[in-house]
Amino acid sequence: MGATQELARFLVETEVASLPDWTIHQAKRCFINFLGVALYASRHPSVDILMEMAREEGGSARASVIGRGVKTSLLDSALINGYLAHLEDYDDTHFPTVLHGSAPLYAAMGPLAEDGHTSGRDFLASFVLGFEVAARIALSVHPWHYAQGWHVTGTAGVFGATAGAGRLLRLDVRQTCHALGIAGTQSAGLREVMGSTCKPLHAAKAAANGLQAALLAKRGFTSAETILEGRRGFWHVLSPKHDAARLTDGLGQRWELAHNGLKPYACGVVAHPLIDAMIALRRTQRPTPAEVETIEARVHPLVLELMDRPDPRHGLEGKFSVQHAAAVALVHGACYPAQFSDALVSDPDLSELRRRFRLIPDGSLGENQATVKVLLRDGRTLNHRIEHATGSPQNPMTDAQLEEKFRTLADHVLAPAQVQRVLAALWQLDRASDLADVISLLAPGA
Amino acid sequence: MGATQELARFLVETEVASLPDWTIHQAKRCFINFLGVALYASRHPSVDILMEMAREEGGSARASVIGRGVKTSLLDSALINGYLAHLEDYDDTHFPTVLHGSAPLYAAMGPLAEDGHTSGRDFLASFVLGFEVAARIALSVHPWHYAQGWHVTGTAGVFGATAGAGRLLRLDVRQTCHALGIAGTQSAGLREVMGSTCKPLHAAKAAANGLQAALLAKRGFTSAETILEGRRGFWHVLSPKHDAARLTDGLGQRWELAHNGLKPYACGVVAHPLIDAMIALRRTQRPTPAEVETIEARVHPLVLELMDRPDPRHGLEGKFSVQHAAAVALVHGACYPAQFSDALVSDPDLSELRRRFRLIPDGSLGENQATVKVLLRDGRTLNHRIEHATGSPQNPMTDAQLEEKFRTLADHVLAPAQVQRVLAALWQLDRASDLADVISLLAPGA
Repeated sequence: MGATQELARFLVETEVASLPDWTIHQAKRCFINFLGVALYASRHPSVDILMEMAREEGGSARASVIGRGVKTSLLDSALINGYLAHLEDYDDTHFPTVLHGSAPLYAAMGPLAEDGHTSGRDFLASFVLGFEVAARIALSVHPWHYAQGWHVTGTAGVFGATAGAGRLLRLDVRQTCHALGIAGTQSAGLREVMGSTCKPLHAAKAAANGLQAALLAKRGFTSAETILEGRRGFWHVLSPKHDAARLTDGLGQRWELAHNGLKPYACGVVAHPLIDAMIALRRTQRPTPAEVETIEARVHPLVLELMDRPDPRHGLEGKFSVQHAAAVALVHGACYPAQFSDALVSDPDLSELRRRFRLIPDGSLGENQATVKVLLRDGRTLNHRIEHATGSPQNPMTDAQLEEKFRTLADHVLAPAQVQRVLAALWQLDRASDLADVISLLAPGA
Repeated sequence: MGATQELARFLVETEVASLPDWTIHQAKRCFINFLGVALYASRHPSVDILMEMAREEGGSARASVIGRGVKTSLLDSALINGYLAHLEDYDDTHFPTVLHGSAPLYAAMGPLAEDGHTSGRDFLASFVLGFEVAARIALSVHPWHYAQGWHVTGTAGVFGATAGAGRLLRLDVRQTCHALGIAGTQSAGLREVMGSTCKPLHAAKAAANGLQAALLAKRGFTSAETILEGRRGFWHVLSPKHDAARLTDGLGQRWELAHNGLKPYACGVVAHPLIDAMIALRRTQRPTPAEVETIEARVHPLVLELMDRPDPRHGLEGKFSVQHAAAVALVHGACYPAQFSDALVSDPDLSELRRRFRLIPDGSLGENQATVKVLLRDGRTLNHRIEHATGSPQNPMTDAQLEEKFRTLADHVLAPAQVQRVLAALWQLDRASDLADVISLLAPGA
């Protein structure tokens, strides 16, 4: 049996009842996170461009665009929701591969499940299995594929999207192989465009193309059944090296969802341990910015390489300034998107505080670790060490933290009472008989 | 100035009046060829799948699907027409790179020009320039990119589609760079799926994605402006090697359209010299199959490598059987799609004739050459040599041959009188004030 077929069999034949409960709970958490991030992003001006395009296309109103109170065609809904979910770079991360899996998967699956009145349990189970497909494919080519310049959220995301959608459509093994073939020959996304709105467009197109591939296969459209392992297939063409064993070893025994982290802070992930430390100090010691003489932070060397930016000029640069992220964390005790506004990045008190950081690269620290020593003007010293940053697989966000994140994001679009109703429904999603009922609660003003 | 920007400037700033007349005529020939092939393909059952998908999406009726008498949204029209134009593998070929340029380009440009009432001259000029962009990009990575496993009609086609559409939309240089960026980060298409309907899907998606990229850029959506040359861009990620000079050397002086051939025969291109020889013998000597003892054919070694298939089982295999193509050419004097039906491939007389071929690989012959010696039962010998196969850049199809091809293909869908009207209008296309008028003549029953 070929690699593609083995993966397809796993996707098609695994029974919902055999999935560990924690995977369903984790899928639910990913969905809550996906929706919160997408709701917040729905007000971004670039989204208007996609909405206008969808209006021009004029598709029928069948599936919701998150946060917009509008329905579009299935493919346009997949496209725009995929865009929304990755736009703020605040979604989930499969730590071993940097795959942001929920955006392409849930964006592809949502329209189908809403339009098809899928039960919450089937929806979540399909995500668990589709995520496994995407993450396994990403793993099989990591790190060579990413280092070559591919944005894995696009390239592996399209496989995940078609897997999740294909499972919802109850494709058989053969149809699933073809769906993966149709999707895989559209695998795309270059790291060259990172920093532009083409980055979330990768998740958007992965979702739409993946959904379309599954729908085509359902109707009998065909492709190669060897898209991964074939001589001119994904492995050989899109990666200098690959490790076939990682695709299927322990399939159905180990779950990659265990290594998927939700992001607590709306900025570059390498800054998260230091942000954790600052929030902890604020909670326990409450130093005011005026009291601070110097903040000496020992961090993994990658932090300086990627985020040493003491004078960011605007919000977007602030997201990649470890000094800004750490400073605002000390003052606000949070790093939501609001903490990376242009106004806060230009705030004189925060600018002053940013200059008080002394960053020391320390190769003995892991990427999830940081130690900080705050010297106060009165001579006191405050110390803190973070072993595993919040949101890493070893220290996941708690359900309460996730709720808080969702609330903060959703409050930009929905009334507090509605946010409360939505959250209650989402935590019960595995018992919902129809995803459409839950989605309808999300419409602004519903 | 970066490579992408230089190409964008050429596309945007070249004046229509500066294009040599022969390029406009060649563009017209490509369009006639594109439409003929697409009309014929419009009856293929796999097209119904795409039509159903478009119906489900429910887009507004703005642009025609060729041969279907139906309008869809702009993107669905681009998608389906791109599919139609490449489905029969009977479209044009840029000989230096194997790029099939017209399918993605005209499929992307047609809906925009029909909906926007573009003049024939602007339409053809935009094709000339967009084709140059696609062909130059293909040249810059050939043969390394194709050898790596990429189907260049998809990967370079999407750039061409966005270039042609972008020119029609009058994007400025900066918008064009972004459009090329949006398109280039979707560059895709694996040779693994060749032999399935995913091959024409590559042209289809290149057309739709390319058109969408241009529309997005027009509305202000952004990307990287260095999609070709950037460190994580097309050249470095999608090709083991590249030659930047080929992108821009002699741009606007030499035209790649000069190396684009229209296919006279609906089968693998390496068989074309031998088909030419058989048709010439039939015309001059008229041997009947029953008279033939042996046919000794000296051909380029690639012919045996790719098409040595004396016993094809069905029509599709017949297209890649040099014996069938040559046999049917001797009997029918033609190699239109009808000559590759399942019925003809199973015909006992043709099967018998196929067995009489003796193929001799000859490295001294070019890919466009063949010599043939027919031994007749009465002892006579008929000889013929082809120097340049019909349809190659050195021996292009004449306008009359192209008309005959168009007629033969269009007759499957349109009444003869309509075909005549359409052809008359197409040969006058550079003087038409509105492409929509010409397209309306193509609707079945119009």
